[in-house]
Amino acid sequence: MDQLLFWVIPVASILALGFAWHFHRQMMKESEGTPQMMKIAAAVRKGAMSYLKQQYKIVGMVFLGLVILFSIMAYGFDVQNHWVPVAFLTGGFFSGLSGFLGMKTATYASARTANAARASLNSGLRIAFRSGAVMGLVVVGLGLLDISFWYLLLNAVIPADTLTPTHKLCVITTTMLTFGMGASTQALFARVGGGIYTKAADVGADLVGKVEAGIPEDDPRNPATIADNVGDNVGDVAGMGADLYESYCGSILATAALGAAAFIHSGDTLMQYKAVIAPMLIAAVGILLSIIGIFAVRTKENATMKDLLGALGFGTNLSSVLIVIATFFILWVLKLDNWMWISCSVVVGLLVGIVIGRSTEYYTSQSYRPTQKLSESGKTGPATVIISGIGLGMLSTAIPVIAVVVGIIASYLFASGFDFSNVGLGLYGIGIAAVGMLSTLGITLATDAYGPIADNAGGNAEMSGLGAEVRKRTDALDSLGNTTAATGKGFAIGSAALTGLALLASYIEEIRIGLTRIGTTEITVGGTSVPLQDATFFDFMHYYDVTLMNPKVLSGMFIGSMMAFLFCGLTMNAVGRAAAHMVDEVRRQFREIKGILTGETEPDYARCVAISTKGAQREMVVPSLIAIIAPILTGIVFGVPGVLGLLIGGLSSGFVLAIFMANSGGAWDNAKKYVEEGNFGGKGSEVHKATVVGDTVGDPFKDTSGPSLNILIKLMSMVAIVMAGLTVAWSIF
Amino acid sequence: MDQLLFWVIPVASILALGFAWHFHRQMMKESEGTPQMMKIAAAVRKGAMSYLKQQYKIVGMVFLGLVILFSIMAYGFDVQNHWVPVAFLTGGFFSGLSGFLGMKTATYASARTANAARASLNSGLRIAFRSGAVMGLVVVGLGLLDISFWYLLLNAVIPADTLTPTHKLCVITTTMLTFGMGASTQALFARVGGGIYTKAADVGADLVGKVEAGIPEDDPRNPATIADNVGDNVGDVAGMGADLYESYCGSILATAALGAAAFIHSGDTLMQYKAVIAPMLIAAVGILLSIIGIFAVRTKENATMKDLLGALGFGTNLSSVLIVIATFFILWVLKLDNWMWISCSVVVGLLVGIVIGRSTEYYTSQSYRPTQKLSESGKTGPATVIISGIGLGMLSTAIPVIAVVVGIIASYLFASGFDFSNVGLGLYGIGIAAVGMLSTLGITLATDAYGPIADNAGGNAEMSGLGAEVRKRTDALDSLGNTTAATGKGFAIGSAALTGLALLASYIEEIRIGLTRIGTTEITVGGTSVPLQDATFFDFMHYYDVTLMNPKVLSGMFIGSMMAFLFCGLTMNAVGRAAAHMVDEVRRQFREIKGILTGETEPDYARCVAISTKGAQREMVVPSLIAIIAPILTGIVFGVPGVLGLLIGGLSSGFVLAIFMANSGGAWDNAKKYVEEGNFGGKGSEVHKATVVGDTVGDPFKDTSGPSLNILIKLMSMVAIVMAGLTVAWSIF
Repeated sequence: MDQLLFWVIPVASILALGFAWHFHRQMMKESEGTPQMMKIAAAVRKGAMSYLKQQYKIVGMVFLGLVILFSIMAYGFDVQNHWVPVAFLTGGFFSGLSGFLGMKTATYASARTANAARASLNSGLRIAFRSGAVMGLVVVGLGLLDISFWYLLLNAVIPADTLTPTHKLCVITTTMLTFGMGASTQALFARVGGGIYTKAADVGADLVGKVEAGIPEDDPRNPATIADNVGDNVGDVAGMGADLYESYCGSILATAALGAAAFIHSGDTLMQYKAVIAPMLIAAVGILLSIIGIFAVRTKENATMKDLLGALGFGTNLSSVLIVIATFFILWVLKLDNWMWISCSVVVGLLVGIVIGRSTEYYTSQSYRPTQKLSESGKTGPATVIISGIGLGMLSTAIPVIAVVVGIIASYLFASGFDFSNVGLGLYGIGIAAVGMLSTLGITLATDAYGPIADNAGGNAEMSGLGAEVRKRTDALDSLGNTTAATGKGFAIGSAALTGLALLASYIEEIRIGLTRIGTTEITVGGTSVPLQDATFFDFMHYYDVTLMNPKVLSGMFIGSMMAFLFCGLTMNAVGRAAAHMVDEVRRQFREIKGILTGETEPDYARCVAISTKGAQREMVVPSLIAIIAPILTGIVFGVPGVLGLLIGGLSSGFVLAIFMANSGGAWDNAKKYVEEGNFGGKGSEVHKATVVGDTVGDPFKDTSGPSLNILIKLMSMVAIVMAGLTVAWSIF
Repeated sequence: MDQLLFWVIPVASILALGFAWHFHRQMMKESEGTPQMMKIAAAVRKGAMSYLKQQYKIVGMVFLGLVILFSIMAYGFDVQNHWVPVAFLTGGFFSGLSGFLGMKTATYASARTANAARASLNSGLRIAFRSGAVMGLVVVGLGLLDISFWYLLLNAVIPADTLTPTHKLCVITTTMLTFGMGASTQALFARVGGGIYTKAADVGADLVGKVEAGIPEDDPRNPATIADNVGDNVGDVAGMGADLYESYCGSILATAALGAAAFIHSGDTLMQYKAVIAPMLIAAVGILLSIIGIFAVRTKENATMKDLLGALGFGTNLSSVLIVIATFFILWVLKLDNWMWISCSVVVGLLVGIVIGRSTEYYTSQSYRPTQKLSESGKTGPATVIISGIGLGMLSTAIPVIAVVVGIIASYLFASGFDFSNVGLGLYGIGIAAVGMLSTLGITLATDAYGPIADNAGGNAEMSGLGAEVRKRTDALDSLGNTTAATGKGFAIGSAALTGLALLASYIEEIRIGLTRIGTTEITVGGTSVPLQDATFFDFMHYYDVTLMNPKVLSGMFIGSMMAFLFCGLTMNAVGRAAAHMVDEVRRQFREIKGILTGETEPDYARCVAISTKGAQREMVVPSLIAIIAPILTGIVFGVPGVLGLLIGGLSSGFVLAIFMANSGGAWDNAKKYVEEGNFGGKGSEVHKATVVGDTVGDPFKDTSGPSLNILIKLMSMVAIVMAGLTVAWSIF
C-alpha cells in the first residue's frame, strides 16, 4: 500500500504535462488576429527565441565547465558522489526545458489574447490565464517527473548490501539533492540574464521614448518597443519559471533528505520512507488541486475588474483550502508519526506565503496609503520620491521577516513535537512548510505568468493600432497582471527563503556523506567519539564548532551579507550599462532614420533586440560566476563553519534586501500609475515626471536585482551542497 | 611598577582635557569679525544650543525611564548588577558633556575661521583644525577619565573576600562595561536626532532654494540657511562625537572584559591585570601621540590645496606610525604574555581602518573613476544617476568587508597564538584591534570635526557678504573638509563594526555574571558539569546551543537583518517628513514675506530652526525606542541564542548596509561637485540637475540613516549586555 502510494507522484506529474499540452493546444487553435498583429507577435517571438538561444549557449559553456569539474572531483579525486555530474545535467535540462516551453507558449498567446479581447474581456482573460497555466503546469510536471525518475533509478541501482536500509535512503535523498544544482545554475542565468535584458530594454525605451520624445508606452515608433516586449517574456516568464522550478524541486528534495536524516538511527525504515515521500505526495496532490483551481477561474461575460480579480483569487484560494484538507488526509493515510502536527507545518507554510503576499500588496498597491503617500511626495520633486520609496521599501521588510520568523518557529515546534532539542524533525518541519507554500505552484505560477502575457497583449494591441475599446480591455488585463505580479514576487522571495533554510539544513547531510567518502567513521564531540552514521545535527554543529563566536563563522556571515549587496550592485550596474547602450541606439535611430517619429518609416526593431541580447549576455557572466565561486572559495578557506556562516549571512541579508528592493520597485511603479489615474495633477504634471523617475529606478529594483537575490540565496546553498565533499576533504583553516 | 603604570591612564585623560581647554582658549582670543559675521554666528550658536536643550530634554526622559527600569531590575528583582543604574548615568552624562563642549567650541570657531581666512588660508585652517581638536580631545579625555574613575572606584568597593582575585577583576570589568549603555543611549539620540535635523534643513533648503528659486547654497535670502548651518553642528559635530565616544569607550571596556575573561582560570592575577589595563594604556599613549600629531599639522603661508591635505595627512599618519611603535613598547614593558603578537593585532586594527578609509575615498572622491562615471550617468537623467549610485554603493561594500574579515581572522590568530580553539585570547585580539583602530581618535576626530567648522565658516562668509577671495579660501577649506568627512565616516563605521564584535564577545561574560546572580553554580555541557566560574566561551556556546541550526538563532538573525533595514527606513522617512515641513515653510516665507528674494527683507530664520528642531525631536523617538526595545524583546522571547543571533545578524547586515549608504551618498555628493567643476556641461546643465537629485537623495543616506546604523550596531549589543541578567533569568522559549 505504502509502496503503491509512490506512484501517485509520477502520475500527477504526467497529468500536469498532459493538461499543459491541452491548454497549449486550445490556445493555438485561436486566431492570432490581423496580419499586423501576427507580424508583431512573430517579431517578439523571434527576439525571445534568439535571446534564449544565446542564453543557452552561455549556460551550455558554464555547464560544460562545471560537469568537467564535478567529474574530476567525482571520478578523479573521489571527493564527490559519482552521480553528481549526471544529476546536474538533468536538473539543468528540465529547468531549461520548462522555461523554453512556458515562454514559447507565452509568445504565441499574447497576440491571441489581444485578438480575443476584441471580442470580450472575458475571452482575453481566459486565453491569457490558461496560457500562463501552461508554464505553471510544465514547471511542476517536469519538476516532479525528474524527482520520480531519480528516486526510482537510484533506488534500483544503489547497492543495499553495504548499507543498512535507513542509510540507503539517506544516500538516495542526498544524491537527488544535487540535481537541484543544475536547476539552480540554469535559473541563475535565466533570472540574471532575463532580468538584465528586460530592464535594459524597458529603461532604454522609457528614457528616450517617454521622457525625451514624449511618445506613449508601446508606441510602434519607439525602436526599443519590441525589445521591451521580448524582455517581458525572457525575464518575467522564462526567468520567473526557472526561479520557481528551482524552489519547487529544491524544497521537495531538501525536505526528503531531512526526512531521511531524521529517522537515520531510529531503524524504522518504513517511517523513514514515509517521511521521504510525504513532501512529494503533498506536491503531487497539489498538482491535482492546482488543475481544479485553474478550471475554477472563469467569469461571467461583461465582468468588471473586481470580478476578474475575484475570479483569479477564487482559483488560488480554492486550491489553498483544498490542499490544507488534502494534507491532513494524505499524512493520515500515510500514518506518518505525528501526522497531525506535521500537517500543521504545511499550513504554516501556506500562511506565511499568504501573509507575505498580502503585505506586498499593502505596500505596493495604489489602493493603500503607503503608495498614495509616495505619489504625494512627488510634489517636492524626484529626490523626495526616491527617498520616500527607499524608506517605504525598508519599512516593508518588517512584516515578511516576522512572518518568516513565526513560520520557522511554529513549523519547527509542530514537527518536533514542541521540543527544541529534536533538531532532526524540527528542521524537517521547516522543509515541510516550504513544500506547503509551494504545493499549489501550478496555479500560483499560472497567475504570475499571466501578467507578462497580458502585458504583451497590450503592447501588441497598441502597436497594431487596435481600437480604443480593445486597448481599454487589454489595459484592464494588464493592470490585473500588475497586481498578481507584485504578490507573485513576494511569494517567490518567501519560498526562496524557506527553501534556502531547508537546503541549508540538508547541507549537514551532505557533510556526513562527504566525511564517509574520505574514510571518516566517527567524529569526536565533547571528548566522546560518535559513529559518523549516528551523529546528530547537534553533534555536527559541535564537531565543527559552528557557533556564533567562531571567527570562521563570523567571517562567513560578513561575506554572506556582502555577497547579497555585491550581487545586487553588479546587476544594478549591468542594467545601467546595458540601458545606456539602448538609449544611445534609440537616440541614433531617431536622429539618423528620418520619418520614425512621424510614423512614415519603421524603426529598426531588430537592432534593439540584438543590443539587449548582447548586453544581457555580456553582463550576466560576472555576477553569475561570483555567485558560484563565493561558496567554493569560502569553503576552501574557512571550511564547513565558514560555509554555513556564508549561507546564513547571505540568506538573512539577501531575504531582507530582496523584499526591500521588490517592494520599493513595486511601489514606485504603482505610485506613477496612481498619478496617471489623475491624482496630484495627473499625466504630464511635474508630480508625474517625478514619479516616472521613481518608476525607472524601480525597474531594476523589482525585476532584476531583487528577484536575482532569490537565486543567489538558493544557488549558494546548492553549490555548497555539491561541493561539500571537497570542503570536508580540504580547507586551509 | 605594574600598579604605577595604571596612573598613566588618568594622567593622559587630564592632559587631553587640558590641551582641549588650551585650544579652546586660543580660539576664543581670535576676533569673530564684522558685526554681521558675529550676528550670524550668534544665530547659529543659539539655534544649535536650543536644539541641544530640546534633545537633552527627551534624552533626560528616556534616561529617567531606563534608570527606573534598571533600578527595579537591580534592587527589586536582583537580576542585575547593582552598579548599573549609576554607571549608566555617568556614561550618558560624560557622552552628553563631550558633545556639548565640542559643539559649543565649533559654533564659536566658525566665524573666527571665516575671519582668519580673510588674512590667509593657513590661519583659517589652523583655527578650524584646532577647534576640531577640542572635540577630539574632549571625547578621548572624558572617555578615559570615566573609565579610570570607575576602575578605581569598583576596585576599592567590591569586596574581595567572596571572590578569588581573578574573578574580582571579571566582575569589575563586566560592571564597567554597562556604563557604555549610557553613552550608547546618548549617542543614539545625538546621531538620530542630529542626523534628522541636519538633513531636514539641508534637503529643505536645497529643494526650494537651489532648485525652485535658483539661489546659491548658503544664500542669506534662503530662510532655511541658518537651520542648515545649525544642522552641521548638531549632526556632524555633536552626533559624530557621541558616536565615536561610544566606540572609544565601548572598545576599551569590552577588550578589558575579554582580557579579564581570558585569564579567568589561569589563576595568574598579574597577567590578567595586565590584559585588562593594556587597552587602556594603548588608548592613553594614543592620546599623547594624538596631541603630538595635532601640533604637527602646520603649513607654510600661501599653501596650496595639496599642501593642506598633506598637512592633515602628515599629522594623522605621524600619530599612527608612532602608536604602532609605542604599542610594541608598552606591551613589552608590561611583559604581557605573547606581547609581540598581540601588538600585531593592534597594527591589524589600524590597517583595517586605513583600508576602509582608502576604499571610501576611492569610491566617493571625484578624483577617481567610479564617481566620475556616476557624473557621466547624469547624461541620461536623474533615474540613471540613482541607479548607478546605488550600484556603486553596493559594489563598494566588498573591500571594507574583506578588510574586516581579514582583520577578524588575523587579530584573532595573532592574539591566540595561531590556535583557533583558544577562543578567549582570540576574541581579546579582536578587541585589541578595535582599540588600535581607535587609539589615535584624538586626532582623527579632530579632522572629522574640522569639516563642519569649515563648512559653517563658508556659510558665514557667504551670508556676511565677504569678498570673493575670502569665499574662495573658505571653499578650499570646506572642500578639504568634505574629503576628511568621507574617510571619517568610513572610519566611524569600521570602528563600530570592530567595537560591535568586541561587545558581542563580552556579552558572554555578562551571561556568566547573570547566571551567578540567579544562583547557578555549574552548567551542563555535553553531559558533563562545568563549574560556572571555569566555563569557557566554548562551553557557553554549547550550553545555550548557539549554533547556526538552532531556530532561535536563525530567528534572531532574520530579525537582526531586518532591524538594520527597518531602522534605516524609519530614519529615511523621518527626514522625508521633516524636510517636507521645511519645504512648506520656506515656500510660505517666499510667498508671504515680500522682498525676501530681492534681499530687501530678512527671512524668518528662527522659524526654520524651530521647525527642524521640532521635526528632529518628534521623529527621533520611534526609531530610538525600537532600537532599545528589540534586543529586550528578543531576549524575552528567544533567550540567549536569540539575542546572539539578533546581534550578529544586525552587525553583519548593518555594517554592509551602512557602508553602502555612506558611499552611495558620498559619491552622489561629489558627482555633483565634479559636474560643478565644469564637467559634462557644468553648473546649470541638465546633467547638473540630474546630479543634484542624486545629491539630495544622498543626503539622508550619508548623514542620517548610514551613520545611525553605527549606533544601532553598538547599542543593541549594549542593551543586550545590560539586560543579560533578565535574559538568563527569564525567557519564553
